[in-house]
Amino acid sequence: MTDWGARAECLLSQVAACSEPGPGVTRLPFTPEHRAAIDLLQTQMEEIGLTVTLDHAGTLIGRSEGPPGSRTLLMGSHQDSVREGGAYDGIMGVVLPLLALDKLRAEGIELPFSVEVLAFADEEGVRFPTALVGSRALAGTFDDAVLSMTDTQGVTLREAMACFGLNPEQIRTLSRNPEDLLGFVETHIEQGPVLEREERPLGVVSAICGIERHQIEITGETGHAGTLPMSGRRDALVAAAAIVAEVDRMGQSTPNLRATVGALTVEPNVVNAVPRRVTLTAEFRSPDDATRSAAGDALHHFMQNLAADRKTAINAEKTYAQMAQPCDATLSAQLAGRGTDKGACGLLLPSGATHDASAMADLCPIAMLFVRCRDGVSHTPEEFAAKDDMGAAIDALASFLTALARKDSENS
Amino acid sequence: MTDWGARAECLLSQVAACSEPGPGVTRLPFTPEHRAAIDLLQTQMEEIGLTVTLDHAGTLIGRSEGPPGSRTLLMGSHQDSVREGGAYDGIMGVVLPLLALDKLRAEGIELPFSVEVLAFADEEGVRFPTALVGSRALAGTFDDAVLSMTDTQGVTLREAMACFGLNPEQIRTLSRNPEDLLGFVETHIEQGPVLEREERPLGVVSAICGIERHQIEITGETGHAGTLPMSGRRDALVAAAAIVAEVDRMGQSTPNLRATVGALTVEPNVVNAVPRRVTLTAEFRSPDDATRSAAGDALHHFMQNLAADRKTAINAEKTYAQMAQPCDATLSAQLAGRGTDKGACGLLLPSGATHDASAMADLCPIAMLFVRCRDGVSHTPEEFAAKDDMGAAIDALASFLTALARKDSENS
Repeated sequence: MTDWGARAECLLSQVAACSEPGPGVTRLPFTPEHRAAIDLLQTQMEEIGLTVTLDHAGTLIGRSEGPPGSRTLLMGSHQDSVREGGAYDGIMGVVLPLLALDKLRAEGIELPFSVEVLAFADEEGVRFPTALVGSRALAGTFDDAVLSMTDTQGVTLREAMACFGLNPEQIRTLSRNPEDLLGFVETHIEQGPVLEREERPLGVVSAICGIERHQIEITGETGHAGTLPMSGRRDALVAAAAIVAEVDRMGQSTPNLRATVGALTVEPNVVNAVPRRVTLTAEFRSPDDATRSAAGDALHHFMQNLAADRKTAINAEKTYAQMAQPCDATLSAQLAGRGTDKGACGLLLPSGATHDASAMADLCPIAMLFVRCRDGVSHTPEEFAAKDDMGAAIDALASFLTALARKDSENS
Repeated sequence: MTDWGARAECLLSQVAACSEPGPGVTRLPFTPEHRAAIDLLQTQMEEIGLTVTLDHAGTLIGRSEGPPGSRTLLMGSHQDSVREGGAYDGIMGVVLPLLALDKLRAEGIELPFSVEVLAFADEEGVRFPTALVGSRALAGTFDDAVLSMTDTQGVTLREAMACFGLNPEQIRTLSRNPEDLLGFVETHIEQGPVLEREERPLGVVSAICGIERHQIEITGETGHAGTLPMSGRRDALVAAAAIVAEVDRMGQSTPNLRATVGALTVEPNVVNAVPRRVTLTAEFRSPDDATRSAAGDALHHFMQNLAADRKTAINAEKTYAQMAQPCDATLSAQLAGRGTDKGACGLLLPSGATHDASAMADLCPIAMLFVRCRDGVSHTPEEFAAKDDMGAAIDALASFLTALARKDSENS
């Protein structure tokens, strides 16, 4: 009997070798490492009997053709990693659905719809200051302007794609017709500790959190820490500390809100000078947009009062906002049902991170399966998902496809 | 009638020209700029009738010889500036007593004791990681080991002094006999806003504050700001914010305590990662050593509880401690009396900053006269003391010398 988890582990370690030298995996889009990963995945896809193409956004597509006129289920994730990242983030979401299809083939099950397994070129946005190129192309939301963005070597995205044998001017033609699609299912490591804490190998995503980011600048007045009396000080760091505490308090006390001050910089930042200027970031994430935007408003109100109390100037700008993307209830319920059958779980949890599914939600119903990862870490060489958990995910995906086939035939 | 304040202004602007190019004044010890300042001051000292020498620590000494067997009053401050500093910090404390002596000479007053006006080479400690070279040499507290310290060009203090024509091996021979001395009087810009707020041109220092510094390191756990639930976070910056707030609260609520977190650094310091590690400094200053050390102890106690509450590791080390140096009550009262005579002030205030007088306190009684400076700022090109305030200081110093002469003759 095939150990599907072990096959996943083996295939992932082969793809992990397609990396720049150094710790962990560094596989950026439109590079020799990307090409090596494509070659390896193409061989695997062809062995499983899929028809393989590379679209003009650099997405590798392995297609299992269903009966004429049938719709298509899209599955997959991204091939790229961050610098010195791990062997699972993204690529595992390509490998597991491939093996689920292989499992069905081994069991002699034919699906009454087409399936495409997609390996997107760039989700992380590490090489170019843009991301989600492949998924936005399919969703019809790709913005040509990003083709002029450059990497650190001064190479534009347009040039990088052309050197890779792609025609970026054709990206606009890649958008899919939603009516042809059953949906998009993405499998991904959780990148968080919830499944590990709950001792569950798998979880189904309820929604991808919306995000907003605020860039905050506090200007007070510096002075010699010895000669400036306490009374009348306009210490920018003391004001910043109140913001850090308040953001944390909001996150701790508001259901479904994650609130973080991640970056903070002090000027002049010396032991014997009262801080003149502090810049900091505040980030809110929630699966519920109203919760998130109420948090942003509450912080602005808090900072207005603080600026007056502390006699400092506080300027805040919302630099980024992204709406929450709820997962499709039907697809998610079917995925959760499969997980439960296999002793996995029906645990629903939000995704705090953005994924290709975020962009695909503009095109079709989405669902996401999370796989437990060790210590909740990702984006490091220590990133790890257990063989047996990946095996459970392959089982769940195969069962999901079978059940979807049953339902699809009931509906037709 | 001589405008002594205007003469001070003129002389200070001449010395300010002895500077590296760039904004403000940059005059580091044992450099061509230092030599230019010495030449200019020497000419001035000789015009006033002083006997000029340069000791082996680089201190320029202008001596007015009193009757045989009489004791000596030391006055002065340092010639060096910080990088891109101002035209007053240090050097004004050399120029004003010179002009006070010139004023007495113009009035035909002869003193029954010797006076030396000292221009120390290095108080700021900008070029070498040590300071107070000249004053420690006189006090007999100079440590030969610092001669091996290097500047950013790799030049040792020993080499720099030798190139300047000094013999650093002779520094040990410079220590003075306390019995020969009446005391040391240093004039300095306040470097703080108290005199300006109180609308007083001059103030007399009650004590030079003691200082203690703590280097604090908080280690929590990082994670993705989206995927890590709020519950169970070990956010190093949230713990740091509580320390910043507590240090400020202690300073605001404790009489005679100045408490500052001046430097704070976050890792990994990105918008979407929970901070893993924060390092910060806490500095306490007080003219009262018990107050200062109680504050340090209270902070350690606070951090022990915080570490447990926030599940973070907090390591703190006291990296620096310096005792408070009370000014001599008799000299200070005489100085304050003179100020009041001249419509200046009898305001007593602590000095939050360290001065040459801190080192001289190991040798003899000290007193300090503060001159109001605009906006309380120092160590910038904007540093400024008004001509009339300097004139008031010259008057006060001249009257002080006369009164001391009267007292000295009464005692003898």
